[in-house]
Amino acid sequence: MIYLDNNATTKVDRDVLERMNFFHSEAYGNPNAVHHMGIKAENAMEDSRKKIAELLKSKPEEIYFTSCATESINWALRSSVLNRKGKNKVVTTGIEHKAVLDTLRDLKNLYNIEIATVKPDSDGVVSFEKLIEEIDEDTFFVSLMAANNITGAIQPYEEMGNYLENKEILFHIDAVQAIGKLDFNVERARCDFASFSGHKFHGPKGVGLLYAKKGVPIRPVVTGGGQERGMRSGTQNVPGIVGTALALQKSFESLYDDSQRVNDYKIRIIEEIESLGGIVNGSPEKTVVNTINASFTGIKGEVIVNALSEQGVYVGISSACSTLGGEGDYVLNAMNISDEKISGSFRISMSRYTTDEEIDEFIEILRNVVSFLNF
Amino acid sequence: MIYLDNNATTKVDRDVLERMNFFHSEAYGNPNAVHHMGIKAENAMEDSRKKIAELLKSKPEEIYFTSCATESINWALRSSVLNRKGKNKVVTTGIEHKAVLDTLRDLKNLYNIEIATVKPDSDGVVSFEKLIEEIDEDTFFVSLMAANNITGAIQPYEEMGNYLENKEILFHIDAVQAIGKLDFNVERARCDFASFSGHKFHGPKGVGLLYAKKGVPIRPVVTGGGQERGMRSGTQNVPGIVGTALALQKSFESLYDDSQRVNDYKIRIIEEIESLGGIVNGSPEKTVVNTINASFTGIKGEVIVNALSEQGVYVGISSACSTLGGEGDYVLNAMNISDEKISGSFRISMSRYTTDEEIDEFIEILRNVVSFLNF
Repeated sequence: MIYLDNNATTKVDRDVLERMNFFHSEAYGNPNAVHHMGIKAENAMEDSRKKIAELLKSKPEEIYFTSCATESINWALRSSVLNRKGKNKVVTTGIEHKAVLDTLRDLKNLYNIEIATVKPDSDGVVSFEKLIEEIDEDTFFVSLMAANNITGAIQPYEEMGNYLENKEILFHIDAVQAIGKLDFNVERARCDFASFSGHKFHGPKGVGLLYAKKGVPIRPVVTGGGQERGMRSGTQNVPGIVGTALALQKSFESLYDDSQRVNDYKIRIIEEIESLGGIVNGSPEKTVVNTINASFTGIKGEVIVNALSEQGVYVGISSACSTLGGEGDYVLNAMNISDEKISGSFRISMSRYTTDEEIDEFIEILRNVVSFLNF
Repeated sequence: MIYLDNNATTKVDRDVLERMNFFHSEAYGNPNAVHHMGIKAENAMEDSRKKIAELLKSKPEEIYFTSCATESINWALRSSVLNRKGKNKVVTTGIEHKAVLDTLRDLKNLYNIEIATVKPDSDGVVSFEKLIEEIDEDTFFVSLMAANNITGAIQPYEEMGNYLENKEILFHIDAVQAIGKLDFNVERARCDFASFSGHKFHGPKGVGLLYAKKGVPIRPVVTGGGQERGMRSGTQNVPGIVGTALALQKSFESLYDDSQRVNDYKIRIIEEIESLGGIVNGSPEKTVVNTINASFTGIKGEVIVNALSEQGVYVGISSACSTLGGEGDYVLNAMNISDEKISGSFRISMSRYTTDEEIDEFIEILRNVVSFLNF
C-alpha cells in the first residue's frame, strides 16, 4: 500500500499511539476530578498545552482544545460575528475550506453580514493586493488559509498579519495544511485566531486546536461544565490531546530534515506527470512541498483515483464529479482552470513517512495506469 | 488502585482499544475519501452507526456522531430554540448536568426564552406531576436526564416520553448516565433527542452521540464539509466511533449479567457507610446500581476523597468546596440536604469491571480512613 492522501488525513504516528493508549487504559482519569488520577490527567493535558504553545510561539492560555479544525473555525467565526460591534464585513478568499465558506454563508443568513471572497490567480495564490482592496472601514474579520488543501498553494498570510496588526480587524488563519509543511507560528503570522487539526499531522482524528490571542473577544459556543477556562465545555479528550501535542512536536522536529527529501519526490513526480502528458494545476514553486494537483486531459480524476486504488495506491480527488469526497472543484474553478482539466484533476499529498521506495513504485504504477487509461 | 469514579469517566475497554488502534494506524483513511481506504473507513463508520441504532432501537440515520455529550446537548438545545415557532418556554429540572443548565442560561440571555427548572424531592427524583404542572401552551421543549450523575437517582423519563408523545413539544433525554446501568432505548423512552457519551461506558473520550428522531427539526451548529448528512461537519473520528459502537454493544450485553453483582456491592457499601455513622444522600432503591452518594457528618468530602486517593482509591466529590471537579453541590442543595452534609458528600461510582476483591479492599480502606479522620 502506498498512501498519498495525507492532506485528507494521516496515519497516527507509532509513538503518538503508544502515548494515547497509556491515557486510554492506565491514566484514564477525568482531568476535572480532584483525586490523583484526575490530577495526573490534568497535568498531562496542561503539559500538552504548554508544549503546543511553545511550538506555536503562543501563551498556553491562548490554546484551546476542540474536536476538530472545523469546530475551531466555526468557533472563531461564529464568536467573532457576535462581537462585530456595528461593523458588518468579512474578507476571505474563494478557495478557503468549506468549514470557512459554509460557516460564513450560514452567518450571512443568520446575521446579514457582508462577505467578500477574493479569487486566486491562476497559480492558486490569492494576491495580497486584491485582498487589501476589499478591506475597508466596515471590515471586522479577515479569514485566510496558510496553504490550500487542494493545490498546496501558500497564501500571503504573513503579509496579511503584518498589514492587519494595528488595525481593529480580527485575523483568522486556517493553518490546517501548514503544520509539518511550513515553518508556521502565530508570533510571525501575527494573527488573532489560528485553527489546527491533529489528524493532518500524524495525530489522532477528533482533536482540533484553536489559538485565540489573549484579549481577543471570544465567546463560548459549547457551554456546560466550564472546561477550557469556561470557553469550551465537555470532558477533554486527554488521550487525544496528549497525542496531538506529541504529533505536533514531531512534525516541528522533522520539518527541516524531511522537507528537502519530500520536495525531491515532488520534483520527480511532476517530471513524470509532465512526461506522461499531464499538467500540474497551480504553480509548483508556490506550493507546500508535499502536495501536487495534476490533470491528464481526457481521463477523469475519479477514474485515475480508482485505478490507482485498485493497485493499492491512495491519492485524493478534487473534483465533485464523484458522489463523495470531491470537494475541491470550486478551488480549481476559481483559478480559471478549464472544466475538462478540473474533472481530470487528482491530488497527490505526501508525508514525512513517504519513502523513496514508495515513490519509485508509485511512479511505475502511475505510468502503467495512465498508459492503460489512454488506450 | 481501586477506581470508583466511573460516573466521571471510565477506562477504555481492552477490545475497544485494540479496535481503535487498528483504525488509527492501519485503516486510517478519511471516510470521505473515494479510494479503498476511504471506503473501508466509511463502511466501518456506517456499520458502527447501524450497530448503535440497533442497540438504541432507532434508525441509523437518526444517529449523529459528535465530540462529546456536552456538544450533543448543546446541539439539541441550541437547534431547538432556533425552531421554537413562537413558543417560548423550556421545562427542565434543577438537577440536570451543567451542559443542559448552562446552555439554557446562555439561550435565555440570547433569545429571552423562559426556563422552568423543577426541583427534585429529597430522594433526588424529580416528580413527574411537578414537571407536567409546568408544561403549558407556551412550552416547546422539555429536557430531562435519565439518571442523575451525582446521586444516581433515576428520573421519570419514560412517563414523560409517554406524556409528551402526541404533543408538539420536543423531548430531550440526557442519557449519559443511563448506558450500562438502565435498559435504555429510544423506542421505549419515546424521546425526540437523546445524548450519550462514549467515555462513560468504557469507550474513548472525544466521542458523543446524538439521537435525533426522524422528522424532528434540527439545524447544524458546526458547518463545513457537510459530514453527517450535512448536519455536523468535520472529519469524523472513525477510530473513536468504531470504539464507541463496540463499547456500547459490550455495555448492553453485560447489563443483565453485571447489574446484580454491582447492586450487591452497592448494598454492602451502604451497610458499611451506615455502620460507620455515615448517611446516604437520596434513596438507594431509586438510584442506578453503580452509584452511591454519601456523607460523614463532620468530615469534608474533599478530605475523604484526598485521604482515599492517598491509599490509591479514587472516588468523586460532589461539593464545590474544592477548586476543581466539585460540580454537584447544586444537585444536593435542590434536594434540601443540609449544607454540612453537602460539604461532606462524596460519590462512589462502580462499573462492570469493579471486582469483589476491590470492594473488600475498598471497605477496609474506607473503614480506616473514616476512623482516622474521626479522631
